[in-house]
Amino acid sequence: MKRKLLFSCLLSAGISARLFAQEAVDQAMVQKIREEGLNHSKVMETAFYLTDVSGPRLAGSPGLKRAQNWAVEQLKTWGMSNAKLESWGKFGKGWEVQKNYAAITVPYYHAIIAIPKAWTPGTGGAIKGDVMVIKADSLPDLDKYKGKLAGKIVIFDTKPLTERTFKADAARYTDEELDKMEKATMAPARQRNAFDPNSPQFAAMRKLRAFRATLGTFLQAEKVALLLSQARGTDGTVFTTNGASYADTAKAVAPELETSSEDYQRILRLVNAGKPVQMEADIKTQFFTDDLQGYDVVGEIPGTDKKLKDQVVMIGGHLDSWHAATGATDNAAGSAVMLEAMRILKTIGFKPKRTIRIALWSSEEQGLFGSRGYVLNHFGDPKTMELKPEQAKLSAYYNLDNGTGKIRGIYLQGDSAAGPIFKSYLEPFKDLGATTVTISNTGGTDHQSFDAVGIPGFQFIQDAIDYGSRTHHSNQDTYDRLVEDDLKQAATIVASFVYNTAQREQMIPRKELPKPQPARGF
Amino acid sequence: MKRKLLFSCLLSAGISARLFAQEAVDQAMVQKIREEGLNHSKVMETAFYLTDVSGPRLAGSPGLKRAQNWAVEQLKTWGMSNAKLESWGKFGKGWEVQKNYAAITVPYYHAIIAIPKAWTPGTGGAIKGDVMVIKADSLPDLDKYKGKLAGKIVIFDTKPLTERTFKADAARYTDEELDKMEKATMAPARQRNAFDPNSPQFAAMRKLRAFRATLGTFLQAEKVALLLSQARGTDGTVFTTNGASYADTAKAVAPELETSSEDYQRILRLVNAGKPVQMEADIKTQFFTDDLQGYDVVGEIPGTDKKLKDQVVMIGGHLDSWHAATGATDNAAGSAVMLEAMRILKTIGFKPKRTIRIALWSSEEQGLFGSRGYVLNHFGDPKTMELKPEQAKLSAYYNLDNGTGKIRGIYLQGDSAAGPIFKSYLEPFKDLGATTVTISNTGGTDHQSFDAVGIPGFQFIQDAIDYGSRTHHSNQDTYDRLVEDDLKQAATIVASFVYNTAQREQMIPRKELPKPQPARGF
Repeated sequence: MKRKLLFSCLLSAGISARLFAQEAVDQAMVQKIREEGLNHSKVMETAFYLTDVSGPRLAGSPGLKRAQNWAVEQLKTWGMSNAKLESWGKFGKGWEVQKNYAAITVPYYHAIIAIPKAWTPGTGGAIKGDVMVIKADSLPDLDKYKGKLAGKIVIFDTKPLTERTFKADAARYTDEELDKMEKATMAPARQRNAFDPNSPQFAAMRKLRAFRATLGTFLQAEKVALLLSQARGTDGTVFTTNGASYADTAKAVAPELETSSEDYQRILRLVNAGKPVQMEADIKTQFFTDDLQGYDVVGEIPGTDKKLKDQVVMIGGHLDSWHAATGATDNAAGSAVMLEAMRILKTIGFKPKRTIRIALWSSEEQGLFGSRGYVLNHFGDPKTMELKPEQAKLSAYYNLDNGTGKIRGIYLQGDSAAGPIFKSYLEPFKDLGATTVTISNTGGTDHQSFDAVGIPGFQFIQDAIDYGSRTHHSNQDTYDRLVEDDLKQAATIVASFVYNTAQREQMIPRKELPKPQPARGF
Repeated sequence: MKRKLLFSCLLSAGISARLFAQEAVDQAMVQKIREEGLNHSKVMETAFYLTDVSGPRLAGSPGLKRAQNWAVEQLKTWGMSNAKLESWGKFGKGWEVQKNYAAITVPYYHAIIAIPKAWTPGTGGAIKGDVMVIKADSLPDLDKYKGKLAGKIVIFDTKPLTERTFKADAARYTDEELDKMEKATMAPARQRNAFDPNSPQFAAMRKLRAFRATLGTFLQAEKVALLLSQARGTDGTVFTTNGASYADTAKAVAPELETSSEDYQRILRLVNAGKPVQMEADIKTQFFTDDLQGYDVVGEIPGTDKKLKDQVVMIGGHLDSWHAATGATDNAAGSAVMLEAMRILKTIGFKPKRTIRIALWSSEEQGLFGSRGYVLNHFGDPKTMELKPEQAKLSAYYNLDNGTGKIRGIYLQGDSAAGPIFKSYLEPFKDLGATTVTISNTGGTDHQSFDAVGIPGFQFIQDAIDYGSRTHHSNQDTYDRLVEDDLKQAATIVASFVYNTAQREQMIPRKELPKPQPARGF
């Protein structure tokens, strides 16, 4: 998921989840789904192909293309209709790492743990250089370094970003936490923007971004050999970001390595104490500009009811990841679960009334682009709230993008009328730990794109496991982090939600249409 | 510390720590020590030189020599007497890593986190090769691979060694745990051997070791390009070991990389699923055979009392470390604390009755060799229990080697008569969390060498912090893991123990002399 910048805003409202009434659920069908999802699962095999076999899946990268192509073929193999790649619009350059080596050589040898920042260039072959510490927070601070940085390996004088904790890396929701979510009451602010563009925080963020953007160009112009920036994370875990724009018009920047806190601070302590540090590095990255389009994977189980088959139930998750690992929890997990939900429904021979469609998004990490583009192409424009006919025919969109943890319930995203319906849908899964319906909303991922044009869009509540502490955007987001039982549970529950939504007499009830958002749109 | 193989053996005995009586402690002197130790500490600066500046300190390595030389000079600078390196006997070859690079190149590029096993050779330049999975638990299993391994990168089909936990990496002792230790009663078995040499476990360990030893030679003879072995640890934390003997007569083995669990399992999953994996690597290691001797650092504050100055109080910890990081918690922490205790006592102008001596051991990680050799040279031979005159003049040896955690008390190692004395020594440090005297023993480090020849040898009880989970022998044992306040506290308490022991009318009471141990000696 995209990094969350807004916490759920809880305000008082008159609706309580406790008042939800029952809705009929076909127990025999649920049992079929459970049997296939829990006892004949393919979800780990699917996850293996999306992670280990495909590799890192940065937007526009060959790794993402491998995963997308595999997913399309797999959907076809399972008998889905209309399985294909669909362009959502222009993205930008693809990029991948083709060599990554860096080490301290003086005062002694030590290979560091570090990851090239996404969309940064390589070093143009093996380099060696002295490390130089820069102390600067703004452009004028940089003046004194002009003409002194050529061939240097540059590091900024910054404190560690992550402190030691005495808390467990991994956790599940407690009953108390779930109960609190269930009891939450709120008037959900639509979480379209992370910050109020007029707030001081947003101004500070803009300033920092402007400095960062200028910095890369400055350092490149000064012919810096390599910039080391400090990563969040500890113990060998390195959280990654991008160091330059993916735009085909982006300015050149210096090569930049996101360096583990321990290695970064060691180098900094040595240089600051007057102990010279020399390093060697060999970083090769490759840009891909042959196709600047972004694509989503789509596939369907066609509806069979004459009156309802034009209506659609959608499920999805983003298939793109960051580049330092294989994006197992962010978000091969969600993608594999959604693919598995489709497989389960197909395998048990379900002929839905409404059409069921899966979409695996791309460029979610850069701003939910894959889903936003899809929504713009199919449903409407949140800037103007000009809607297309398809908007009226999509019953609901269900998203999964909060890691490997099992489903504990669902966020209503303020759609109180959906509460009793989902409470009924969850009823058969009490024994699997999924019980909670919360009126609250959650942000940072693709259901928001649907919510923005008035389509019921939902993200499930998932146990965090070690998503925040270890895997989310890190070099440790690998297949090993996946919890098999949790993924099976999630696929089973999603399949059941989709089944129910596809067969329900009415579509899922909607909130009031949002107002146009010309300032920010998506 | 050397890996602990024996848990404390708790048996019933008549002595309880609760019965300990008070012993006079000079409060004014304790106050001086506290002031210097807590408010004018140099312990972090010392730790910086031992870790960041010296680098990895594997036994016999240039890094250890840098740290040893620095420590000797620092002791001299602080005005200590007789500061020098003292040979404890023959160790073997020195070794260090001079280049460490390995990456998957097919099916996509991914640089792996991996550490050359200590005392293994390099790859002889950059190599490329196919990965081949070997399934073998014994020598006969290897027959089918003969003639097929040349130029291959070899990996064994093994499960992950470390499971995900929902427990915190770092912890401190709870009051309940300390209380339990305080109430423990036991007749302490001398923990000289990890295993009974006649036990099935020991036989199994011998067999595994024999296979491992043969394996390295077999793979080398088969001209394997590189062996990947799976490390303990997760999330980028890699625990290291040695892959060959440090003996100057050791047989040649194949190059071997201890590989992070995540990278190892990814490679294994791919190859086992029929997906070819190719890798490239460039590993250079250097052996040093110019000086096969092992050395300890020693230094003194001479005694000033005519009758007592020939008697000695010793403190120490091992200065050597493993090679993947800078051995900050194992055991620059203990070494820095002991150096700092000496500095505190010298700085406050203390003129002890008895001589105070620090010793920073080497080759502890290979079998407590530095302290064992020192004990053999100065005090006696545990095989025969032939003792030297110095044995009768060493009042006590205090050791610190359980990480960065503050002192919570002391293990009596079965020396019940020392209990009331130490209870009094700890009395002024209740406010710093050090209260517990336990009759129990602890193993795995250098106080055992003294205990083995009947000299009171003690290790303090320390909070574990993340010693077991993250730092102990790992690539993450860096300066960042040090807890400044804890080290200051420990140095202050050690200085106070030393002060009291140096001034006490009598030496620290002893247990009965142990019996000769001809079978195993140390």
